[in-house]
Amino acid sequence: MSLNSSQFKAYIAGFLDGDGSIYVRAKLNSSYKYGYQVAPTVAFFQSSSCESFPTLCKKIGYGRLRLRKDGIYEFTISKQDEIIDFITKVSPYIELKQQQAKLILEILKLKKEVQNEQDFKQLLNRIDTFRDLNYSKKRKRRM
Amino acid sequence: MSLNSSQFKAYIAGFLDGDGSIYVRAKLNSSYKYGYQVAPTVAFFQSSSCESFPTLCKKIGYGRLRLRKDGIYEFTISKQDEIIDFITKVSPYIELKQQQAKLILEILKLKKEVQNEQDFKQLLNRIDTFRDLNYSKKRKRRM
Repeated sequence: MSLNSSQFKAYIAGFLDGDGSIYVRAKLNSSYKYGYQVAPTVAFFQSSSCESFPTLCKKIGYGRLRLRKDGIYEFTISKQDEIIDFITKVSPYIELKQQQAKLILEILKLKKEVQNEQDFKQLLNRIDTFRDLNYSKKRKRRM
Repeated sequence: MSLNSSQFKAYIAGFLDGDGSIYVRAKLNSSYKYGYQVAPTVAFFQSSSCESFPTLCKKIGYGRLRLRKDGIYEFTISKQDEIIDFITKVSPYIELKQQQAKLILEILKLKKEVQNEQDFKQLLNRIDTFRDLNYSKKRKRRM
């Protein structure tokens, strides 16, 4: 079983809709050209008491699993090509997080195309739309 | 799409593994023959900001959706025949909650077969196993 079987893609789409999270963080970081590190992520969380979770994560074929100090497994896909592969395969089966799935692909495309500060501002604006979708707090704007 | 399509069953299995809960409560209730009401439940929870969740729940074909005062949608399947139908259809696709799926079916069978207090004690013991699986607190025993 892998992300190439339609049954597993449908399963993972359900898992993502139920428990998963799709988000992009723009972190203040002066070592980056435009002052922000842009970090897109797909994440799943489970209690560390769930013994089968690592096996499930391995079936996805990429991503990183870590056990947090609070006893929660955090599985994240953060490499851009892997996010694109994951979302492209799973999104036909998504029922709830379609908007987030479309938006993260759009942001990854915009990010690749950034050539100047104006492009980067546009990227940050789209990231703000994302934050609205997920109902999180607004980022403090620097530009 | 309904719980008769294998794709939707796989999706719902993923949703259940990610976000769902399978449990049986034995509630102290003196109006019941053996002093407890036994309430098996399959439940999903989502934020009320998730506008597509009611549509998704309708596709399952049974169960009850309510909006709690804390802004959380709670979708529950609690009728025994519906739980049996749901678990039977979805369990071949479950990756994480297989033990809970098997146990709730076993408990529903035991519940139907209760003929005396000894049988009921056995039922309560199996319900305790369930509580161990889900890592919740122990019930105060009366018998």
